[in-house]
Amino acid sequence: MNTSEFRRRGKEMVDYVANYMEGIERRQVYPDVEPGYLRPLIPDSAPQEPDTFEDIINDIEKIIMPGVTHWHSPYFFAYFPTASSYPAMLADMLCGAIGCIGFSWAASPACTELETVMMDWLGKMLELPKAFLTEKAGEGGGVIQGSASEATLVALLAARTKVIHRLQAASPELTQAAIMEKLVAYSSDQAHSSVERAGLIGGVKLKAIPSDGNFAMRASALQEALERDRAAGLIPFFVVATLGTTTCCSFDSLLEVGPICNKEDMWLHVDAAYAGSAFICPEFRHLLNGVEFADSFNFNPHKWLLVNFDCSAMWVKKRSDLTGAFRLDPTYLKHSHQDSGLITDYRHWQIPLGRRFRSLKMWFVFRMYGVKGLQAYIRKHVQLSHEFESLVLQDPRFEICAEVTLGLVCFRLKGSNKVNEALLQRINSAKKIHLVPCHLRDKFVLRFAICSRTVESAHVQRAWEHIKELAADVLRAEKE
Amino acid sequence: MNTSEFRRRGKEMVDYVANYMEGIERRQVYPDVEPGYLRPLIPDSAPQEPDTFEDIINDIEKIIMPGVTHWHSPYFFAYFPTASSYPAMLADMLCGAIGCIGFSWAASPACTELETVMMDWLGKMLELPKAFLTEKAGEGGGVIQGSASEATLVALLAARTKVIHRLQAASPELTQAAIMEKLVAYSSDQAHSSVERAGLIGGVKLKAIPSDGNFAMRASALQEALERDRAAGLIPFFVVATLGTTTCCSFDSLLEVGPICNKEDMWLHVDAAYAGSAFICPEFRHLLNGVEFADSFNFNPHKWLLVNFDCSAMWVKKRSDLTGAFRLDPTYLKHSHQDSGLITDYRHWQIPLGRRFRSLKMWFVFRMYGVKGLQAYIRKHVQLSHEFESLVLQDPRFEICAEVTLGLVCFRLKGSNKVNEALLQRINSAKKIHLVPCHLRDKFVLRFAICSRTVESAHVQRAWEHIKELAADVLRAEKE
Repeated sequence: MNTSEFRRRGKEMVDYVANYMEGIERRQVYPDVEPGYLRPLIPDSAPQEPDTFEDIINDIEKIIMPGVTHWHSPYFFAYFPTASSYPAMLADMLCGAIGCIGFSWAASPACTELETVMMDWLGKMLELPKAFLTEKAGEGGGVIQGSASEATLVALLAARTKVIHRLQAASPELTQAAIMEKLVAYSSDQAHSSVERAGLIGGVKLKAIPSDGNFAMRASALQEALERDRAAGLIPFFVVATLGTTTCCSFDSLLEVGPICNKEDMWLHVDAAYAGSAFICPEFRHLLNGVEFADSFNFNPHKWLLVNFDCSAMWVKKRSDLTGAFRLDPTYLKHSHQDSGLITDYRHWQIPLGRRFRSLKMWFVFRMYGVKGLQAYIRKHVQLSHEFESLVLQDPRFEICAEVTLGLVCFRLKGSNKVNEALLQRINSAKKIHLVPCHLRDKFVLRFAICSRTVESAHVQRAWEHIKELAADVLRAEKE
Repeated sequence: MNTSEFRRRGKEMVDYVANYMEGIERRQVYPDVEPGYLRPLIPDSAPQEPDTFEDIINDIEKIIMPGVTHWHSPYFFAYFPTASSYPAMLADMLCGAIGCIGFSWAASPACTELETVMMDWLGKMLELPKAFLTEKAGEGGGVIQGSASEATLVALLAARTKVIHRLQAASPELTQAAIMEKLVAYSSDQAHSSVERAGLIGGVKLKAIPSDGNFAMRASALQEALERDRAAGLIPFFVVATLGTTTCCSFDSLLEVGPICNKEDMWLHVDAAYAGSAFICPEFRHLLNGVEFADSFNFNPHKWLLVNFDCSAMWVKKRSDLTGAFRLDPTYLKHSHQDSGLITDYRHWQIPLGRRFRSLKMWFVFRMYGVKGLQAYIRKHVQLSHEFESLVLQDPRFEICAEVTLGLVCFRLKGSNKVNEALLQRINSAKKIHLVPCHLRDKFVLRFAICSRTVESAHVQRAWEHIKELAADVLRAEKE
């Protein structure tokens, strides 16, 4: 394909994308296909001679779309939102064209420098403590990771390296293995599975702290675990506090947990993957209080801040903690500025070597929405979740299962898990809306997450009417 | 931005991208900026009210482009190529619009299923042993990772889990830490720094095997290390063989190393990050001989197969080895098909949870180029590198430092490292072309990598004339 054909096809694709977004509401949110549907629809090997663009664009509706779960449909209420906005898509087109791999400053200075400044912009929107910003040439700074899972892993590895160095400095005879055997990390029993995974990858124990009645990690439970583990000869070194858990959007008590981490010399990582975006609104900023005790903080603008995936924002108070865990400098990656102290080589901050020019998406989105536009977007979602909450509360057959703080409502039919499983099964079989469940303690619970950029009150109302009808069917079937 | 504005702005962006690609040859390949150039050019915080699209598009030329290293300029000969093609860019636009997060089959069946089939297509192009394909419902299969670094890490973690389980099955009293302390992994002393990093992250020893005169890992050196380490009580468990090293594109002897790994029950991971794309040409396929001994194989279509970053293709012979290392199933990610045995939940194959619909890029590129078009592209690059090699060989002041097999030429002025460092410094200060160096043993060497999709013989000839002129200056300055 030459450039003039790209001009033509690119514009056709822009129209395809615009048509898709405009018509998404009329598509069934969850597909009808069964596992293995796609393979029989396409050849079993790549063509020797080129196909035409027409062939491909026709196949999108025939082969791809029937198997797509439409995450941006206003009837999609599953998982958490994943961001989608036109400014981010435009920026991504530019990112693809520049196509630099920004592993070092020299590999494309603009890629590194825009990222650093955008992370400062975003940090200021959240009123992060200055220690996390790069601006004043302090020791902290921000980086875009691919996902919150990677941010947690990177933080755990940095903490692991730091504690090993500290203990070996005091007792040089200690081997790394002898230390690692005793290391123990903590998170709430409501933390995301990626925290457990980071422990597995890092080869350290991870213990779940029992959360309280509001599904929050509190001082007393953490303190108890620390005392028990220290008495058993273990070495607590790392705590993940979650702000906005995946199950029910509960908030660990940072103001209680933070001081303990500082006093006990444990790295505190704060994971606000979903909820973090809300902290740009002054009325939700208090939920972040206590972040001043943290060593690292992360949330996903690619969830709820209109920056398309992937863009996971991570800040640390001491850059050298991250780079110390990873730094390796082969000749082919050295460049003349790297020891100047002025520049950032982001490859030392992350697991992969390569990285795209992702900060362009932040730049486009922040500028084209403005802070006020972004705040309005968050507020609309929170308002819609409260609207759904009040609908549920008006129906005595249902109960709300956790406090509704942001855009997630956890609810269920009063009664057995079985009846709620049956309700979810009916909802997802009908495919008019899409939800996923969670377990809160021993209860099977339905999660209603406000997700789409284009969801409005009318969609929420229609979803609730639909849920009520299916609930009536389930309850009727139960009685029979 | 509403949909009708997106239609207009999207088309403007298509033209901006087309103009950029068309005019890239006239831009200086490496930027003039100094560290810190960008921050003073933009506000120190995000705007409260929206900026216009015109503001932003104007700022691209004012603020971004002056700091871009133009990886797709035909005068860019640094690192290795990073892929760029119009079909991949079109696919990425669609990927952004669908915007699904494909962590499980249910999260978007098309996203998972197209990936599985595209990995089979690509595996067949490479004539990978059938054991690596999913097609015949065997135990193997392919997955798109973000980078070769992640693929190496994932392989190492799977191997670590496997050996720990095996040893604990035989001796249940062994702790994980007691085993990890003794685990040792191997790669050639020419392997990429990401291999060393995977060892650091995984908390296991990694030993460098001295390569031979052709910078290749051979049986004798590996065998020697194994015997020495076993005698010392260590447990060899993982070997990374590189096909096409970053320094000089040398090839470890798979046919020698493979059988040793199989016999000694060590996981063999083959990293062909750059070179792998060439194996779609029958005349280069022999370089992959021995892959039948491997447990996992990886290369980067995002380097040299015209699929824009990120797209790193990884295959394993036993899917359960990967999923066994990572599998965690919280309720909110469970879905009704997952235990059917028919489906793939790619989240168990990788470090992050989230993932984009990256297989669309493969589908567009493979179809719009056809296998023959892709082969022609590889052959053109290899031909250009041989053209450069022959130019170097015609000049008695220069020497070739490693065999030229694919698109990389390692060369230097006969003489001291100092004179070669001076030559590189002049080249990269002149900024007409861009190169990076490497060390081969104690020699400082210049790497000339054929990178751009649009590079032609004329660019290579001009680059060589320029290098010769600067070399003359350096040699003159040295004499003075």
